[in-house]
Amino acid sequence: MRQSTLFVKTSKNLPKDEISESARLLLRAGFADKLMAGVYTLLPLGFKVFKKIEQIIREEMESIGGQEIFMPALQPKENWEKTGRWQSLDILFRLSAGESREIALGPTHEEIVTPLAGRFIKSYRDLPFAVFHIQNKFRNEKRAKSGLLRGREFVMKDLYSFHADQADLDGYYEKAKLSYRRIFSRCGLGDCTYLTYASGGSFSKYSHEFQTVSPAGEDLIYLCPKCSVAVNKEIIADVKHSCPQCGQKDLIEEKAIEVGNIFQLGSKFSTAFGLKFSNEQGENRPVLMGCYGIGLQRLLATVIETHHDQKGMIWPAAIAPAAVHLLALNLENEDAKKSAEKLYRDLRTARIEVLFDDRIGLSAGEKFAEADLFGLPCRVVASARTLAAGKLEVKKRSDNKTDFLAPADLIAFLRGQN
Amino acid sequence: MRQSTLFVKTSKNLPKDEISESARLLLRAGFADKLMAGVYTLLPLGFKVFKKIEQIIREEMESIGGQEIFMPALQPKENWEKTGRWQSLDILFRLSAGESREIALGPTHEEIVTPLAGRFIKSYRDLPFAVFHIQNKFRNEKRAKSGLLRGREFVMKDLYSFHADQADLDGYYEKAKLSYRRIFSRCGLGDCTYLTYASGGSFSKYSHEFQTVSPAGEDLIYLCPKCSVAVNKEIIADVKHSCPQCGQKDLIEEKAIEVGNIFQLGSKFSTAFGLKFSNEQGENRPVLMGCYGIGLQRLLATVIETHHDQKGMIWPAAIAPAAVHLLALNLENEDAKKSAEKLYRDLRTARIEVLFDDRIGLSAGEKFAEADLFGLPCRVVASARTLAAGKLEVKKRSDNKTDFLAPADLIAFLRGQN
Repeated sequence: MRQSTLFVKTSKNLPKDEISESARLLLRAGFADKLMAGVYTLLPLGFKVFKKIEQIIREEMESIGGQEIFMPALQPKENWEKTGRWQSLDILFRLSAGESREIALGPTHEEIVTPLAGRFIKSYRDLPFAVFHIQNKFRNEKRAKSGLLRGREFVMKDLYSFHADQADLDGYYEKAKLSYRRIFSRCGLGDCTYLTYASGGSFSKYSHEFQTVSPAGEDLIYLCPKCSVAVNKEIIADVKHSCPQCGQKDLIEEKAIEVGNIFQLGSKFSTAFGLKFSNEQGENRPVLMGCYGIGLQRLLATVIETHHDQKGMIWPAAIAPAAVHLLALNLENEDAKKSAEKLYRDLRTARIEVLFDDRIGLSAGEKFAEADLFGLPCRVVASARTLAAGKLEVKKRSDNKTDFLAPADLIAFLRGQN
Repeated sequence: MRQSTLFVKTSKNLPKDEISESARLLLRAGFADKLMAGVYTLLPLGFKVFKKIEQIIREEMESIGGQEIFMPALQPKENWEKTGRWQSLDILFRLSAGESREIALGPTHEEIVTPLAGRFIKSYRDLPFAVFHIQNKFRNEKRAKSGLLRGREFVMKDLYSFHADQADLDGYYEKAKLSYRRIFSRCGLGDCTYLTYASGGSFSKYSHEFQTVSPAGEDLIYLCPKCSVAVNKEIIADVKHSCPQCGQKDLIEEKAIEVGNIFQLGSKFSTAFGLKFSNEQGENRPVLMGCYGIGLQRLLATVIETHHDQKGMIWPAAIAPAAVHLLALNLENEDAKKSAEKLYRDLRTARIEVLFDDRIGLSAGEKFAEADLFGLPCRVVASARTLAAGKLEVKKRSDNKTDFLAPADLIAFLRGQN
């Protein structure tokens, strides 16, 4: 991708009310744009990160048998009345579609997926299964001040699983836990994200959050350094300030961002919608359900919160907008220009994703500052001076060491980075 | 994909109010589910088609330089007041987010993309460019009776282009026309889709629709068989019932579905939002815009309207849920089961997408009927009888001829089909 053709630019004029560091970096870099509180546009480079995160999540959901569907955001009031949430859910956007029809704007999809599943479940032979979708959610957050960490509109992956008995639900729940670990690990959050015990509601002792330790977090967790698990604030008193796994009491309080949540719904929604199956004895039993959510923009913003420095973002390779930021300097020099263009072609031919700063009229300093702000994993500088010496300057965003390589060695070097 | 693990089933109980043939086929086959009038869930096999259409559109938009972004559905009232459409647009969903804030649910995105572009356009050097996004649109259609052809919630690809002068807009508009032709052609609608002259509004003589001839169409077009273009009903009197290209008057009236629309907006929206640029002489000029839309579910449903028979859907290869429907019969026979499983593995190893009907307890007739309903391009039957004779029965959905092939020849045969 050529930076000269990108329609966005970096910006120094940020909305005054934007206090979230990840949002400020995204807005400065032109990765995102703010439309109103809690509502953002993803611009080309931010959207590339978003799509990579989406693809990682999709692959991991498919790896645990999730079948992808696409449910609507417009949801009939009747469904929400069946669970009592039409009245009780304060973040629910309600709208009217003509005089006789009221509609909810989906903040979540239990009210849709449960009756949908009911159309296809008759007997134990139809169980278990899991469906997921990746779609916009709408939540009328009163205080949407945390940038992309808590949007009023955001894309969520929600997986729902359906089971005949508790053992089957438990088994799947453990598989989902592992897939969540893989997702956060592939997105670069493996080391700072903790399985966190949370309130289980009526049907199980605990639910689980995945909490990423960060000063930007709105949550407090209590971390057991021995077990690498945590307890959220809500239930810390219930567990008597001790680790639910090893029982020890030396827990460390940390601010954290909830990047995922998994929950055994049990028969809560099946009961509301009459979702039953007949077991091997021919008896009707309620279907047991689990739900498993990840907000995509929140995950993206959390990666920034945990991967940046004062100069800008530092993207993990798997979700970076591109692997390489190729900066061409001295483009008014014909030889330098030709060499840089050839490098760009060679990288593309080698199927290495590259953002090519081919803009004329910017100083080296400006290009370096933008490269640091954008935070692509590897910066390659092609200048008249280094090219004349038969060298390229190569630097990883995550460290300060600069290598000098012959152009012919670049691709092998980059492939060795992953 | 194994049919035994798919959570959906075919259905004979269709909503009584569903009169659209494409919707009825999608619902019967379990490719989609109806939540309420004009609001549908895409189920696994329908979603696969949807994703393939999305990918074709994405590739074609990128091929004409479109930069992909993702704009919000929640849109501030202020933006819609600037164009006067807060009041005038009757299909606009309006909702309130607290006492002081009214919000539109985006039926289109000119009101968002124009001020967004304005943030990055200063001079002629910043032009031209084009951005697109693929996102849910919401339209409060009073009569949503045409199934997925006219939804109240649907995914749309909308591309917006920005230009310094009319010649540049004209040039891009012609490129967009060609990319639209490629999209419809790749989706199997090339032969029955016509560039159709429509009203141009204040800034150009004509806009253009792409109309697919079909009895399910809500529009009337007047087709010039010589030029293979058409005129829509709205302007047929203005053009004096003659072809705008060759002038002849023997036009054929046809029912048609509008699958795409391209429009030169000129300075309509730039004026409303003060979107200007300074030209080479340093003078401020309004930016000229074009917009280019395709509704994805409508396109999907149109393919069914034009590609089905009384037995079911007939998918074009490029957007079929899978290339091959492998039906295994006599699975209670161990040898037959082993052979079918091996075939399934071999097809997957060869990276041929296959839907494997590995369900036990269904008759051959039931499996054949479902294969016809689903409409995958090629049906392969592995039965104890044919396998014992060292043969597979292979049939294209689009014709009646049956071939008998040795299993070892299947993959070469299938590759030859594309």
